[in-house]
Amino acid sequence: MRILGIDPGIAIVGFGFIDKQGHKLVPVQYGSIQTEAHTEDSVRLKQVYEAMVQLIDKYKPDAVAIEKLFFNRNVTTALTVGQARGVLMLAAVQQGLPIGEYTPLQVKQAIVGYGKAEKKQVQEMVRMFLHLSSVPKPDDVADALAVAICHAHSATLLQKMNGATKR
Amino acid sequence: MRILGIDPGIAIVGFGFIDKQGHKLVPVQYGSIQTEAHTEDSVRLKQVYEAMVQLIDKYKPDAVAIEKLFFNRNVTTALTVGQARGVLMLAAVQQGLPIGEYTPLQVKQAIVGYGKAEKKQVQEMVRMFLHLSSVPKPDDVADALAVAICHAHSATLLQKMNGATKR
Repeated sequence: MRILGIDPGIAIVGFGFIDKQGHKLVPVQYGSIQTEAHTEDSVRLKQVYEAMVQLIDKYKPDAVAIEKLFFNRNVTTALTVGQARGVLMLAAVQQGLPIGEYTPLQVKQAIVGYGKAEKKQVQEMVRMFLHLSSVPKPDDVADALAVAICHAHSATLLQKMNGATKR
Repeated sequence: MRILGIDPGIAIVGFGFIDKQGHKLVPVQYGSIQTEAHTEDSVRLKQVYEAMVQLIDKYKPDAVAIEKLFFNRNVTTALTVGQARGVLMLAAVQQGLPIGEYTPLQVKQAIVGYGKAEKKQVQEMVRMFLHLSSVPKPDDVADALAVAICHAHSATLLQKMNGATKR
């Protein structure tokens, strides 16, 4: 099962494809889509959408996991990130992919085991889970891989629950 | 010049196509795209996007005007409306259409003449500008027509300014 994790944004979109092979998680490809500042929002949205369509077409994931963001402070940021999130979700749903949404709390709990984990701890766990020599940069890439791993763990849990129900 | 006004949302998207013929504004088509509650966000975004692509393809506007929303209160609403706004802007920019963004304040000033106008006053002015027998319902449709008219007025102003510069 191949999972695409996404950390949405308009300036930087982190993405990470991982393969779940039994209990093993194997990194396939990861990186970021970046758009230029001082460019119209609509143009940046088109760039983000087209880049994501190409990535999905190339790496053919079975499922998508995306961060569900909460903003305490900046409503303008929420609107801007929401716009990027909208076109990213569209790229996924147009290919018929199921989309899992996870809050930062859920991601931290899945990766480190408790919701108040530091960002550095999450990143270090991501590195270890995927047997990487260093933490992927920028942070958005590590965050995207983290949400992909979170989805992989949830998928395992769902399989166990379904298995238990069937017995 | 044909202008498409959009009032973005996930449950209801108001739209209104108007033709600017000199100083005259003529309504072409208006209405709303509605999606079912209790449906996944990603599916609703796809429905909104596809409906808008069809409308643009059918009525072929020259420009798009969309409400620029500010939320004082609800950040979750901002994120959700942002997502819808993202796919709507994508539908427009994919057709190479210029997009004008207007705040509710700008719309009110353009339609009624001052920014603290009541919603009812704006709707009544929309009805009069377009020579309609009644105010279009739901409110989202009247709002979409209002932002289209706002864009038409701004276009007139820009033409005048360009004319003045050229002389």
